[in-house]
Amino acid sequence: MNIPDTNLKRIVVIGGGFGGLRLAKKLSTKDYQVVLLDKHNYHAFQPLLYQVATAGLEPDSIAHAIRQVFAGKDNFYFRIANVNAIDTDHNSITTNIGSIDFDYLVIATGSDTNYYGNKNIEKNAMPMKSIPEALDLRSLILQNLEKALLTNDLDERSRLMNYVIVGGGPTGVELAGAMGELKKHVLPHDYPDLDIRRMNVHLIQGADRLLPTMSQNASDKAAKYLKDLGVQVWFNMMVKDYDGNVITTDTRPFEATTLIWAAGVKGSLIPGIDESSILGGRYLVNEFNQIQGYDDIFALGDVALMKSEEKPYGDPMVAQVAIQQGKLLANNFDNLNEGKPMKPFSYKDKGSMATIGRDKAVVDLPNWKFAGWFAWFVWMFVHLVSLVGFRNKVVALMNWVIQYFQYNKSVRLIIRPYKGKKEPSESDPAMF
Amino acid sequence: MNIPDTNLKRIVVIGGGFGGLRLAKKLSTKDYQVVLLDKHNYHAFQPLLYQVATAGLEPDSIAHAIRQVFAGKDNFYFRIANVNAIDTDHNSITTNIGSIDFDYLVIATGSDTNYYGNKNIEKNAMPMKSIPEALDLRSLILQNLEKALLTNDLDERSRLMNYVIVGGGPTGVELAGAMGELKKHVLPHDYPDLDIRRMNVHLIQGADRLLPTMSQNASDKAAKYLKDLGVQVWFNMMVKDYDGNVITTDTRPFEATTLIWAAGVKGSLIPGIDESSILGGRYLVNEFNQIQGYDDIFALGDVALMKSEEKPYGDPMVAQVAIQQGKLLANNFDNLNEGKPMKPFSYKDKGSMATIGRDKAVVDLPNWKFAGWFAWFVWMFVHLVSLVGFRNKVVALMNWVIQYFQYNKSVRLIIRPYKGKKEPSESDPAMF
Repeated sequence: MNIPDTNLKRIVVIGGGFGGLRLAKKLSTKDYQVVLLDKHNYHAFQPLLYQVATAGLEPDSIAHAIRQVFAGKDNFYFRIANVNAIDTDHNSITTNIGSIDFDYLVIATGSDTNYYGNKNIEKNAMPMKSIPEALDLRSLILQNLEKALLTNDLDERSRLMNYVIVGGGPTGVELAGAMGELKKHVLPHDYPDLDIRRMNVHLIQGADRLLPTMSQNASDKAAKYLKDLGVQVWFNMMVKDYDGNVITTDTRPFEATTLIWAAGVKGSLIPGIDESSILGGRYLVNEFNQIQGYDDIFALGDVALMKSEEKPYGDPMVAQVAIQQGKLLANNFDNLNEGKPMKPFSYKDKGSMATIGRDKAVVDLPNWKFAGWFAWFVWMFVHLVSLVGFRNKVVALMNWVIQYFQYNKSVRLIIRPYKGKKEPSESDPAMF
Repeated sequence: MNIPDTNLKRIVVIGGGFGGLRLAKKLSTKDYQVVLLDKHNYHAFQPLLYQVATAGLEPDSIAHAIRQVFAGKDNFYFRIANVNAIDTDHNSITTNIGSIDFDYLVIATGSDTNYYGNKNIEKNAMPMKSIPEALDLRSLILQNLEKALLTNDLDERSRLMNYVIVGGGPTGVELAGAMGELKKHVLPHDYPDLDIRRMNVHLIQGADRLLPTMSQNASDKAAKYLKDLGVQVWFNMMVKDYDGNVITTDTRPFEATTLIWAAGVKGSLIPGIDESSILGGRYLVNEFNQIQGYDDIFALGDVALMKSEEKPYGDPMVAQVAIQQGKLLANNFDNLNEGKPMKPFSYKDKGSMATIGRDKAVVDLPNWKFAGWFAWFVWMFVHLVSLVGFRNKVVALMNWVIQYFQYNKSVRLIIRPYKGKKEPSESDPAMF
């Protein structure tokens, strides 16, 4: 890996997502040598992936080069790497670009799509957890309409024009809303020789309401907004199987060429940590984010499970938890260095929000829950401020302003056609 | 293809580049049914491909969805298709999505990279004639630096950090300039643990000056600007071979992992036209853009060669020629419909320009040749105005303004790593 050995202790951080990036930015490189590894050379702003998939934003405006974030930081090393295993006995990790020793290791690998063991769904459904995946989805959504134009088989055309989204959390709801907007405002102009009224967007939710972690009011408003956009929402329905054409559920089947799976995530684990420290696909950590049974190995964000009596399932798997843990852990490394005790983590819930479409958003703040155009404005403001990089903020804002006035989504481009999952190279970015 | 047969005559246009797009926009669909075919679902603004390759612009801002251009146009049909052959006896073409009859056919397929039959170069060099190719190049440029960080083999590191561009026309010059800017202003901050001074950008030109179609003053200025940016320019040098590591020329070898081939283009021909109507890889056309020997089959732009006694090599293969021919041909179809004689084409040269870097451009207008910051400003203005779509203009302008003040190129992202040319799927976009 070509990282020099120094007298300073070395902290290796795996993952440049919300948690890993915040931690690495705050870590003092006077006291530690910091090594950051990621599969990509960019930080992806995952909450806006659905806008990439639905042609609202170009991928480049939700991605930010990691090297740019750390330009000028001494004693800091970034490498693109896939981490294969952790050797906890010798405090080292092995990767596709060699192995490296650590004094402290922080696993901030985030989460990946969870198909709950269903191989058929994994093979045939579309995930949306990374920028390449969102781009594949953008290509597929458009390709299906192009194919629908070509067929005279009415069943096939109907399958091609049915888009089924599974999962009524924020990702599923936001994606369904954006698809509804495409259907309502954009596609009828693009495809005059296709009857876009025959296009269906279905959202399948296992629970009896959408956005179950938000208020009842937010759930109701979200369902209403989706209905206004022509999305068909199905509650209390469990998807059982999918062969690429027919989606089997516990009540009725759906015929669709596209199934988008937003029904679950699991921690992105790395082999080497003792099984007893893993629960439900996440690393069990104490209030200092140390993995149970290890003093030098930490986990934070989605991949960490900080259980307590009040919170048996830990904190939600959202960006804010990862960011707050990253911030605190950087301080705790200072404390460690100065021989002071570490401070325990407790999550400050700043609220949550989701946008369904133009002027249609729901916001739950700790003391104020609201919906509508003002919520949409707040949503936009918060997301703009959170985007990393001045350029990204400007470009995203310009896109949203133009879309607001034109009812348009301008980046409906098939730059690389989606050709099925048979190409591992596409989804395996670190192996260059 | 599912295109209805009507009483109107059908014009099939192959290619949504500058010529095909302009023609199809201007064609009267009251008098003709118009069918436009392209391999992609977007029009690519090719003059700015080099900015995509060098992380200055996101691909989405130089691409514009073709369907968006034609929204609301009746009796117009767009299809994504690869055209395989023309059956001139039966006035029909075969494509990957079926065959279609035509009354008139216009071939506006543009040009592709010309390796002049050298298989090794074709296999090992990087072309830059499409957005996927430019994105591959962006990935490769960045990947090589990441790899250079990892090796202790000084020869290998030096090969990885040598970027050789072949061809001193506008593409090669603009690309070399952008690479020089990356080297001078951006990469030293991104790669503190790599000695970027050891990075070399070579530009190899066969003639004795750069931009040979422009004025001597433009050539001299371009060479000076490139030198200022640290680019090494080699004149009167012919590249003979390239095995992926060593570039053989008629004078000296270069060791480099990256060879970018901007040394020639050839028309993108489609099988079926008689060999006698093809010269130097282009269709011989008369002054009405009719292919020699055919009344109903036209070619325009790069793929057409309109020879005359004064112009034995026809007009230059540039966007302006294609645009002007597309415009005139649309009028001539009106004339045909009204039984009037067609008007002959003659190229109005509006001038040419190239940009080497910030405040460094050369402009040759018919009566005024100038260089420097004002030329750069004119270059920017002309390219902004020419970009299709309001959104693209705004986003490109924002990127350029930010880069101007920050000396930065913000989209240095490896979104899909380049893995060599062994994957035909990557460069074969229409086969979805």
